[in-house]
Amino acid sequence: MNTLVVALGGNALQRSGMPADADSQLAVVRKTAAQLLHILKTGRPMAVVHGNGPQVGRIVLQNEAAAAVTPPMPFDVCGAMSQGMIGYHIQQALGELMAAEGLPGLPATLVTQVRVLADDPAFSNPTKPIGPFYSEREAQALKARTGFAYREDAGRGWRRVVASPLPVEIVELAQVKALLAAGFMPITAGGGGIPVVRENGALRGVAAVIDKDLAAWRLAEGLGADVLLILTEVEHACLDYGRPGERALRRVSAKELRGYLAQGHFAAGSMGPKVEAALRFAEGGKSRMAVITSLEMAGPGAAGQAGTVVTG
Amino acid sequence: MNTLVVALGGNALQRSGMPADADSQLAVVRKTAAQLLHILKTGRPMAVVHGNGPQVGRIVLQNEAAAAVTPPMPFDVCGAMSQGMIGYHIQQALGELMAAEGLPGLPATLVTQVRVLADDPAFSNPTKPIGPFYSEREAQALKARTGFAYREDAGRGWRRVVASPLPVEIVELAQVKALLAAGFMPITAGGGGIPVVRENGALRGVAAVIDKDLAAWRLAEGLGADVLLILTEVEHACLDYGRPGERALRRVSAKELRGYLAQGHFAAGSMGPKVEAALRFAEGGKSRMAVITSLEMAGPGAAGQAGTVVTG
Repeated sequence: MNTLVVALGGNALQRSGMPADADSQLAVVRKTAAQLLHILKTGRPMAVVHGNGPQVGRIVLQNEAAAAVTPPMPFDVCGAMSQGMIGYHIQQALGELMAAEGLPGLPATLVTQVRVLADDPAFSNPTKPIGPFYSEREAQALKARTGFAYREDAGRGWRRVVASPLPVEIVELAQVKALLAAGFMPITAGGGGIPVVRENGALRGVAAVIDKDLAAWRLAEGLGADVLLILTEVEHACLDYGRPGERALRRVSAKELRGYLAQGHFAAGSMGPKVEAALRFAEGGKSRMAVITSLEMAGPGAAGQAGTVVTG
Repeated sequence: MNTLVVALGGNALQRSGMPADADSQLAVVRKTAAQLLHILKTGRPMAVVHGNGPQVGRIVLQNEAAAAVTPPMPFDVCGAMSQGMIGYHIQQALGELMAAEGLPGLPATLVTQVRVLADDPAFSNPTKPIGPFYSEREAQALKARTGFAYREDAGRGWRRVVASPLPVEIVELAQVKALLAAGFMPITAGGGGIPVVRENGALRGVAAVIDKDLAAWRLAEGLGADVLLILTEVEHACLDYGRPGERALRRVSAKELRGYLAQGHFAAGSMGPKVEAALRFAEGGKSRMAVITSLEMAGPGAAGQAGTVVTG
């Protein structure tokens, strides 16, 4: 069997409304691990990508709160910290279940850089809000001091915004391949990866948020995977979502789905990037399948028996 | 050639007196990487362990500073975050130099749990200070609220103290081996590893600091390494250090060094644990060599041509 790449959404790591402490996070991750176990039991090699939005947001908050006593780390370093934190919980929870089932192929969290292009147009139009809310006056003072970009966020206050560039290379792809070849389950490109650009032959971290579903697509390409499984809160991508006539998409060709995307059926920053990642993957070959479904349907979804199944 | 395990001390990651911002840290890590390159050029497989004392201390500080808005992460999770942060910088800096030299075997940072025993006697006598300083009154209030242990720290105030138990198992040892076998350079057990205990068949994170030199010893055992290289600020372990008659140790048998340790020649919490780790390793076999030397002597040290060279 070829490799499957799974992308875990925010609900796989934290339930909204639950406290953001470590025990609550670990409890949610344990439930997620139980879902992933359904896939692992089929013996399919798997790599896991996860989001980090709320977690890295809290790390930025903590860095800002202590700014008077220790210098805040830049956003790329905060991303690296979130990979350590989230990867630790996933590998611990999944390792426990796999050992209990006698499954081989224990998890291995790799700190992962993902390369983006310094001239990606996203850098001239930063859109991803990160970290705490400020008043307009605070935001303008911060902008003058740091040079960062700030934007008003849906009536809730001002926040720093960073670019969301396209991933062009999983820097540690060969290491991920080596772990898979040896039978392990890599947890990689967490939060979409630590964003880096190539500059005079060296890599340099930048402040950006790489969409984790697109990072999972890039990883799936690099690994020659044949399934990209995107797990989220809903069982299907829908046409006319939340409107009269809403209908779930089940099996759909890439060509048909590309049409729906162009018609504006999928919300930017929500289902939109998932559909885009699924399309990029499915468009790459006839033997490929991208599936968007809920965390609870991970097992049947991996087999193309649940969710929105996109074929090339 | 057999594997070499190198343990990097605090001075490999941060210069005292330098600001603790990311650029300064990365600048120091780049110099460290240039030293490690001397070893990598010989073609010897190598795994890297590093400390995290000041870094995890700052993460704890940041967590405490934001406690009113987001729950502080427990100490094991802070350790996982430090592995992400420090591993990222080492892999970026070393990857750059290796690529420039055309060397194979790029770095790979693994988030690493290290198992300790729940009944390790260290847990009844916590000695490792972590995080911020408090007044005695604050410390007693915190103790009542959290149940954590606090101690007066050398006249500077009160600090939380945690146990420093012995490492008994590198949980992700097989993953480290797989990366080495595929020709990569693992960065693993950062900060001595994320301390976990086995409880009802599962691993659970605990608040503890595993000595990173002892973690490096345990890793070297697990990997069947034949060199353990402990890099620190001084070129040699010394007898009567800082006293009249101080003399550097060059080649020394494990038996002789065990005697000096028993005589109290090496400071607890400083050269003591390095000597202890070197001894445990060298005592394990005639073909083994443990070397304690300065970061600047990494190259000759790895070949047993500098520093304090301990043989079995």
